[in-house]
Amino acid sequence: MSQKIKDYLKEKKDFFENSIDNFFPKIAPEMQLLEDAMRYSLLAGGKRIRPVLAIAVAEMMNYPVEKVLPLSLAIEMIHTYSLIHDDLPCMDNDDFRRGKPTCHKAFSEETAVLAGDGLLTEAFKVIADFPKDEKLLKGKLTLISKLAEASGVNGMVGGQVMDMKHPKNGGFEYLELLHKRKTGAMITISCTAPLYLFEANEKDIETISKFGEKIGLLFQVVDDILDETATFKDLGKTPGKDSKQQKLTYISLFGLEKSREIAEKLVADACDLIKNYKNSENLQAIAKYIYERTN
Amino acid sequence: MSQKIKDYLKEKKDFFENSIDNFFPKIAPEMQLLEDAMRYSLLAGGKRIRPVLAIAVAEMMNYPVEKVLPLSLAIEMIHTYSLIHDDLPCMDNDDFRRGKPTCHKAFSEETAVLAGDGLLTEAFKVIADFPKDEKLLKGKLTLISKLAEASGVNGMVGGQVMDMKHPKNGGFEYLELLHKRKTGAMITISCTAPLYLFEANEKDIETISKFGEKIGLLFQVVDDILDETATFKDLGKTPGKDSKQQKLTYISLFGLEKSREIAEKLVADACDLIKNYKNSENLQAIAKYIYERTN
Repeated sequence: MSQKIKDYLKEKKDFFENSIDNFFPKIAPEMQLLEDAMRYSLLAGGKRIRPVLAIAVAEMMNYPVEKVLPLSLAIEMIHTYSLIHDDLPCMDNDDFRRGKPTCHKAFSEETAVLAGDGLLTEAFKVIADFPKDEKLLKGKLTLISKLAEASGVNGMVGGQVMDMKHPKNGGFEYLELLHKRKTGAMITISCTAPLYLFEANEKDIETISKFGEKIGLLFQVVDDILDETATFKDLGKTPGKDSKQQKLTYISLFGLEKSREIAEKLVADACDLIKNYKNSENLQAIAKYIYERTN
Repeated sequence: MSQKIKDYLKEKKDFFENSIDNFFPKIAPEMQLLEDAMRYSLLAGGKRIRPVLAIAVAEMMNYPVEKVLPLSLAIEMIHTYSLIHDDLPCMDNDDFRRGKPTCHKAFSEETAVLAGDGLLTEAFKVIADFPKDEKLLKGKLTLISKLAEASGVNGMVGGQVMDMKHPKNGGFEYLELLHKRKTGAMITISCTAPLYLFEANEKDIETISKFGEKIGLLFQVVDDILDETATFKDLGKTPGKDSKQQKLTYISLFGLEKSREIAEKLVADACDLIKNYKNSENLQAIAKYIYERTN
């Protein structure tokens, strides 16, 4: 990975993280515990790949970048809530996330449920309230609808149900649909959100959606590869859980080598989709980074 | 309770329930289980007091009533999600709700967490998508912001945290704040939601907010009274849990007789606030009904 893209990712991550407090809800002191739990998980680090994607798309489309910071935060809040709930004992029962105790381990199960609920609810408020710009009313409503779709029953929540109930003989079709919903939909909306906010034309929305879908699948293939090949230190969580749980993954279906080929093709296809946009270099570099990442 | 208000409540409840399928999300067949769990809890009956309040306020304000059906559903979906999550083993651990097994008992804990998450997420989509009316863009965004506030960290979710962590010596001030957040905020927004949607003036919003706050507290005082006096058959759930758990309630603080007086004063104050509106009779009758209800 080139130093240039490393610097770019770091710069955008910092730009995003430094803006969080401008939009994050102010919480009354009686609910300090709730605020602590929400912030614990939201500020637990991570690559901030979703906000960075939104910012990179906004830059490529020549939108005022500071106006996509609230939606970037909303997306990251929804992503964070999903991790908190997925880690719960009745779900994936994970004790570690990014090398730290998961929310229910650091606080309690009930606090974790409520911290997740709070992050999800407040995410929609962030978009409704920010940026304060009367010209964006229609774009904000479209965005809220699309974000709820991506994170809701036909998106992330539905994907989680598919994952939980996956049939052993589901095959590739089931796996792909599952991932499109569980992780792909939120990655895709990270790319398209700025376009909805600024009411872009259908053609741009379609192109960037396809780009997002490729990146979303790529993300999952790489996740499956890393679960097979990486260490706890790399991942900040226990690797090898998938094969132990006999989960349907790219590895279990195709093996390691073929999975890498699939990932390479996804990167190439994604870059191809956007290569005609001026200034698409950073976004292309992010696609390559997602393939090369080690955690 | 007069036959007239009984008929009115039944008529509006049916009007609301018959509209649910017009706005409830269509869910892809792979997530049938999720849809089943969401519908199981949403359609478990109940008084539909929140949708009926929204409809009654819309009638009093002379708004087109069919246009408040989507927001009524959104509010009921959020209310339902909160019941599902509150009933979880790590929260209140309730096995019955409205005489039926709770969601996690009828399905599973993980399905119940996700059904709640799905209802909450899709509620915001319902408002963003319906009614399809370009004149309501600004009203919808204000409504989304206010609904997220009422159900979020400074509202319902925060109230739940306060309830979970209430100090034994919290006293009346803590109790009132807790209830304003936990149940009051959602009752209040049920009353004010139509006004936000139709961009009512500040004075009307303030008056109806105050009415909603009185009704919200009334609702809680009556809940506390019923927990002390009603039977399982009346409530559809186990009564007497509050005193068994030594919870801070109106009963534990003031005793039964004084709690009834407080409730009567809340009804009188609420009716007084709206008596100058033409056609406020039905809304006043609902306030009285909430006091007289037995479940």
